[in-house]
This record gives sequence, structure tokens and C-alpha cells, in this order.
Amino acid sequence: VATGLLARLPAALAPATPAFVVADENTLPLLPPALAHLPRHVLPPGEASKSWAELERLLLALDAAGLDRDSHLVAFGGGVVTDLAGLAASLHRRGIPWSAVPTSLVGQVDAACGGKTAIDFAGGKNTIGSFHPPRAVLVDPAALASLPGEHLRAGLAEVLKTALIAGGELYARTLELDLPALVRADARATAVIAGCLSVKDGLVRRDLHDHGPRRALNLGHTFGHALEALSLRTPGAGLLHGEAVALGLLCAARVAGTRRGVGAGLEHRLRDRLSAWGLGTTRSGLDPDAVLAEMRRDKKRRGGRLTLILPLAPGRVEVLEGLDDDVVRIGLGALTPGC
Amino acid sequence: VATGLLARLPAALAPATPAFVVADENTLPLLPPALAHLPRHVLPPGEASKSWAELERLLLALDAAGLDRDSHLVAFGGGVVTDLAGLAASLHRRGIPWSAVPTSLVGQVDAACGGKTAIDFAGGKNTIGSFHPPRAVLVDPAALASLPGEHLRAGLAEVLKTALIAGGELYARTLELDLPALVRADARATAVIAGCLSVKDGLVRRDLHDHGPRRALNLGHTFGHALEALSLRTPGAGLLHGEAVALGLLCAARVAGTRRGVGAGLEHRLRDRLSAWGLGTTRSGLDPDAVLAEMRRDKKRRGGRLTLILPLAPGRVEVLEGLDDDVVRIGLGALTPGC
Repeated sequence: VATGLLARLPAALAPATPAFVVADENTLPLLPPALAHLPRHVLPPGEASKSWAELERLLLALDAAGLDRDSHLVAFGGGVVTDLAGLAASLHRRGIPWSAVPTSLVGQVDAACGGKTAIDFAGGKNTIGSFHPPRAVLVDPAALASLPGEHLRAGLAEVLKTALIAGGELYARTLELDLPALVRADARATAVIAGCLSVKDGLVRRDLHDHGPRRALNLGHTFGHALEALSLRTPGAGLLHGEAVALGLLCAARVAGTRRGVGAGLEHRLRDRLSAWGLGTTRSGLDPDAVLAEMRRDKKRRGGRLTLILPLAPGRVEVLEGLDDDVVRIGLGALTPGC
Repeated sequence: VATGLLARLPAALAPATPAFVVADENTLPLLPPALAHLPRHVLPPGEASKSWAELERLLLALDAAGLDRDSHLVAFGGGVVTDLAGLAASLHRRGIPWSAVPTSLVGQVDAACGGKTAIDFAGGKNTIGSFHPPRAVLVDPAALASLPGEHLRAGLAEVLKTALIAGGELYARTLELDLPALVRADARATAVIAGCLSVKDGLVRRDLHDHGPRRALNLGHTFGHALEALSLRTPGAGLLHGEAVALGLLCAARVAGTRRGVGAGLEHRLRDRLSAWGLGTTRSGLDPDAVLAEMRRDKKRRGGRLTLILPLAPGRVEVLEGLDDDVVRIGLGALTPGC
């Protein structure tokens, strides 16, 4: 993690010699000249590129470029680019090395690190994929200046999630972080991004396959995934992933308050911080039954049990097993204006 | 490895509970009644099923069946079925457990064990795939009775390759193995199959990703792959994989004789054994330049260096780095009638 890293990418990647670049149409202009001569594959921007058809096109491009098992692939872009390119890297010749250069905030603090690769398939999100950790994740916070504001704000929800799991200094710094500091990529912002990456990396190293401690990173995502999926069914009302995670964090905090006696201060602090960043903290017209049904559908797609990560305090989370109507209703209460 | 294992498959798989079966139209009639009630996907038989399109169809079937991360998939068939099903198992929900029940000889002694999964892609063989070892490989030698004779003979080339790598008792037993014993699945045949599996399993456990000792298993395959690929370009002249490996073993033995002073007795013993099984040991009209060009193309597709595994003696192989015209010409000399 270093400001200005993009300008010295080939040196930062050494001793690996990049042989191929995957980018999207939005990130291509940011590509350092030193990588511009490499063979590359450029995706249309957006979640629609995480598809079976795009995966095939990318694999054909890797084949045409003659990449062998020692060829190093560089994924340059947001979560869509790194998810798809990582999956292709895991499949070409049964796996070639790759590095991620995430250019979005979600990518920098979450998606590019951790070895999970994926495409969307059969109507489900991230339902096809692999575990294929990149050799390196190279983060230049200065790249965030080019990010649309709503994507920057959405990424902050993942930052807050990670900081809440970690507690301590990272949590304190995150509560003080403002958008201008992030856009300027000042030292405080860089420290928060590096801190989030370090937290995630630590959990992933202990539990790559997500059966144990890594599950903490699901904080905010049980409600979040359901709200995101439901929102996408109404044209024009779709939530960005991070926007849904912001709401999910509040739901999880509310359940922690009701079921574990956590003081209301935690939920209030999270709400204040999310609001200050410009993220929505309420959502009207939600049907608890529909949310629970969506959680169950998601569970079936993702495997494993239906669990909720509860924030007990900064630096301390707990896994609640077995979600029922009551818990969902309690959680959604956090999103009703005035409650 | 046990004769009659098919009849007690569910018990043999315990504690894993099978949730889905992949088979092909030829192996489906062998499916034990106890597995017949499970949701399943049936492939057209033959190498053409190791395709991108069949992989998508299988992944859609796994999705439609609602398999989650704990669901156990059973691949029931030859190398095509286990290669494709293993790859699908590695991708569905980023990987679900699977077991292989190989019904062909190549599958029983080689393809199903070792964790390599694959499809053919962009004109190359096994160019897309993953490392996803099955939880169990369950071998019933009695299943071989239903195998066409040419496939049984072709599989014996892989048996001989493995026995030559291992040396000792397995090599001695293999030189005494005849086709009727194999079709009867008598105790000697079962011991040879179990021995081959054990040799492969030992190498794979030491070197899953095929950078070190596992490379010994490539014995016979440098020439073999090239001869197989070239043969497939002439309609009606195509070699089965094992038939090509038989020829490749003789080429490797000839190079070992010329370059390492290995006595001619080794090549003679291999030739006698392959002939006794009814496998071809000569091939006319081969152009050494075309063979070398095909080896180089294959190297580019597969990655890694162009190497030849030389049999120095039963139980002892050596890696020869850097193949040139001379080596290819020497090796092909073993296939010229009367030389």
C-alpha cells in the first residue's frame, strides 16, 4: 500500500514479470505506460462482466497469448476485474500466478485480497469460483481520486466493517476518516486502507476456505446480501454492494443490542459515521418475510449455515447460529426511520 | 480397491453421503441401484464431452439440484467423466467435495487419482482445469469386464508405465499380467491395479502441483502426447491415449539406451509385454521434425520445460532436460519396424 505505486508498478511487481493485463474500459486509462505494451484483455465495466461468457472470452485470450504456467497475469481494476481475472488465472493451465492491482475502494480493502475468485452464474452472485490467492496485492490509494463518489462511499461501508472487526486504532482512525482525506489519499487514509488489508490478510491466512475465523468478515453481509438482492429486482432502486452492507451493519448492531445486551451507543456511532459519509441508513417498505426468504435462498446458493455475525464491541464479534423471523424483524427495525 | 465394490458403494463412501451423480451413457447401466435415486447428470460418452459447453451444462445441473458446499458429488465413469466432474466440483460454490468411481482401466490406475481435473479448450487437450483431489477413489476391478478390448489394452500401457517407475514386485507382477486375468478381475489383476494407484498416490501426495517427483508419471508421455496429437489429424488413424503412451515408452527406453547406456534388454522386455497385450509397438511414416514441432506446441500449451523422462532401470527414472532433433530421431528409431 503506497501512494504513487501505480507509477512504479513493474518494479513493485518484481521479481515477477507481468505477461498479461486484464482491465476494464474505465480503468484502462489509469494503466501505467510501463504495462501498456503487454498483451491485454479489456472488459466492459460493471457486474455484467462477471459472466460465463466473459470468462470464456478471457480464457481464449490467455490461450491466444500463449501464457504458460510461469506467466504472470496482472488484474487491474475493481472487484469485477479481480474476481474474473483471478478465476481465469486459476483455470488456465490448471493455474498460473497473478497479482491484483485494485483501483476501487471495495477492491483495495476487500475484494482483491483473500483469494476468492468468482463469476455470477445461473442467477446467483459469486456462485462459480475458486480459491486462488494472488501473489501480490498492490494498492495505490491515489487511484481512488478517479472513482465515482457513490462507489467511494459504498466502499467505506466495507472499511467500517473491517475496522469494527479489528477495533483499536483502526476503528478510531476510521471514525475520523472523511471523504476529502480519502480523495486526497493523505497519510491517514492510506493508514486506514493498509490497516483494513492487514486485518483481512490475517484472517485469510488463518482460514483461507472460510470455515472459521474468516467468517467474521461476513459482518453486515447476511442482511446486506438479502437487501442488495431484493433491491436489484426493482429497476432504479438497486443498492450498490457497499450501500447494502452499510444497512446490514446497522441491522447486525440492532440484533446485538436486543439479543446480547450491547449498548445502543455502538449502533448510534455506526449510523453517525455512515451518515457523515453520505450513506443511507434507513430503508422503507421492507417485508421481513421476503428478507428472510432471500437469506434462505442465498444460504442455499452459498452453502453453509444461516448465521449472523454480531458486533459485541469494537474488536469483538460473535457468530449467532440459526436465524428466525424474530431476529430478522429486530434487525430490520434498525432501518425504520425514527426507530 | 476391491472386487465387488460397486455393489456396496454407498457403504464404501460413508461417512460421506452422496448427493449427486455424474456418469456417461455407457457407464449409467453399471450404476448401483443404491445410487440410482440421486439427482444426476449424464454425459454423451467420449472425449468430446470434455468441453466448455458440457462444463456449463453440468454446472447448471449442480445449481439446479441446489448442491451446497457440503454436498458430495460422485463421478462414475472413465477419465472423461472424472476429469469433467472434478472440474465442476472445484468450481461450484468455489469447491464441493467429490469422489471418483473410475470404471475404465486408465481411470482406475491413473486419471481418477491425483487431483488433476480438466477440459479440452481452444483446440488443446486438458488446457483448462484445476487441482481438486477427490475425497476418495473407489475402484472395482470387476467393472473392467464391460470395457471394450482396445480400451483395456490401452490402459495397460499406463499400468506398465507406472510399474516401470515403481520397479520391484509391481513391475514383476505387471510383466506376468495377461488380459484374461484382468477381465476376470482375479487377485493378481487387483493387486496390480492397487499397486499402480498406490504408486501414483504416493507421488501426488509429495507433489500435487507437478513441479517435482510427480513428473516421473510423465514417462512415455512426451513422445506419446505428440504421437497422439499427430495421429488425430488423420481421420481413422487416431491413437487412443494409452496406445500412444505404449509407443512413447519405447521411444523413451531407446533414448535411455543411446544416451545413458541402458542395456537393450529393458526396451525388449517392454516391447514384448506390450505386444503380448496386443498393443502396437511400431509406427511408420513419422516425420521427426513434425514430432518435435508437436512437442514444442504441447509444451507451450502445458507450460514448463520440454523434458523427457528416461527409464534407467525398473524403479529408476531420470529427467532429461532440453530435447533436440537428435533425441527425437533416436527415440522414433524404436518405432521403425525391424530396428
